Amino acid sequence: MTVAASIPENYSPAQIIRAEVRAGSHKTVTANLAHGFVQANLAILPSDWADEFEHFCLANPKPCPLLARGEIGSPHFPTLGADIDVRTDVPCYRVFENGIEVSQPTDIRDFWHKDLVAFAIGCSYSFEWALLENEVPMRHLEQNNKVCTYRTNIDTTPRGRFAGKLVVSMRNFTVPNAIRAIEITSRYPQVHGAPIHFGDPSAIGIVDINQPEYGGRPDIRPGEIPLFWACGVTPQSVIESTRPPFCITHKAGHLLVTDRLNEEFRTG
Amino acid sequence: MTVAASIPENYSPAQIIRAEVRAGSHKTVTANLAHGFVQANLAILPSDWADEFEHFCLANPKPCPLLARGEIGSPHFPTLGADIDVRTDVPCYRVFENGIEVSQPTDIRDFWHKDLVAFAIGCSYSFEWALLENEVPMRHLEQNNKVCTYRTNIDTTPRGRFAGKLVVSMRNFTVPNAIRAIEITSRYPQVHGAPIHFGDPSAIGIVDINQPEYGGRPDIRPGEIPLFWACGVTPQSVIESTRPPFCITHKAGHLLVTDRLNEEFRTG
Repeated sequence: MTVAASIPENYSPAQIIRAEVRAGSHKTVTANLAHGFVQANLAILPSDWADEFEHFCLANPKPCPLLARGEIGSPHFPTLGADIDVRTDVPCYRVFENGIEVSQPTDIRDFWHKDLVAFAIGCSYSFEWALLENEVPMRHLEQNNKVCTYRTNIDTTPRGRFAGKLVVSMRNFTVPNAIRAIEITSRYPQVHGAPIHFGDPSAIGIVDINQPEYGGRPDIRPGEIPLFWACGVTPQSVIESTRPPFCITHKAGHLLVTDRLNEEFRTG
Repeated sequence: MTVAASIPENYSPAQIIRAEVRAGSHKTVTANLAHGFVQANLAILPSDWADEFEHFCLANPKPCPLLARGEIGSPHFPTLGADIDVRTDVPCYRVFENGIEVSQPTDIRDFWHKDLVAFAIGCSYSFEWALLENEVPMRHLEQNNKVCTYRTNIDTTPRGRFAGKLVVSMRNFTVPNAIRAIEITSRYPQVHGAPIHFGDPSAIGIVDINQPEYGGRPDIRPGEIPLFWACGVTPQSVIESTRPPFCITHKAGHLLVTDRLNEEFRTG
């Protein structure tokens, strides 16, 4: 029996993607899938690191907008989807021991144990969806590129053992669309909200905008302004540099597709 | 009996100002008065010009956010305040015949007649109030100056006999406060909403930002960005250049104080 044949007819696009990921038939990025559904960044930590990480997220809501925290030992996020199982529902994971990546599995059932706590963190796919719904185009999407991200000189607010620099994603717009992009994204505070900066990259410690840490070379045209958003790579970067004895995150672009709608997170 | 003695104790700050204006004891600008209450730009036209003007406002909601239209011959705006009388409640008026200013009275009872229609249009004092409530400072207020306004090269959307260029007001901010200012003002679409431009003044036809049409010389410091909002001077400017046989507006800064709260106009 194929995966497709086993998927109930009444499944939503989000449930279909999760079923395919769970069955091992979808192992690639989740960009542009399950249009309108919230996708989440994943972080899994030992329980004695969990409270500190939650405090770090709550102290840094723009880069680390916390969508859900699982119970100790539970791989489920009932508020994000009744059948979600974080051990199987992400296309590709990264497993770290003492800050060193030891595996990139497509399933973490063998790594899971009853002392782990899972966190779901909002993702810019949600506000990119909102921008597209409002007909604000983004160059990297038009060119089928990954969004450019940069490490800044801005410190996150440290909590416990978690501290580090803010990572931002950049999107460039004409001035009218930059104003629209600020208006629109400010209405989605749980998925990074409004940008933290626009214009001069050096004001936030970016030495060369043409040298992003991730993503391709940006294509910023005359009259366009770069806008910089706090990025969900920040908590991953902070976890990696904090080097807990064990942690699991997702591979970039391989996110958890939830049953929640982006529109539910709109405020006003 | 003095005016103060005749004002009932239960009057709101808005009702107190209107009573003082009506009694002729307040003849100056209304800036910084009746904190939190909506102030309105005023336009009064002959009835055979009224529908066209309303259509012009509705086609240009950013410069001309229509708050109320009175009945033909009625000087009242019941939705803005039960006792409002536009013949007496504005500190200083401008009366035009065929586009020529013929008087600046403090009371228009002698000019009023049963064929006139009054319009109340939103004002930037409301969003400036919202910015101050959110601790976003404005240089012109700190320096006790009038806001700078400029005529742009942007055409309003013409309707009937009404057409003309957009007039904008300028406020300069640091980048973080510019983002906040866009976020905040976008939530007040009935009082001009988000800016229409930021950055390069020449992109909207402003040749020299240091030469505003009204207001003092701007004080834009290194790292600050000028933001430009559609301004309530636009409808006045358009009416004057359209030259109806008769019209009445208010003198700059001498607005109608209403009973509505700015906060009522917040969306989200």
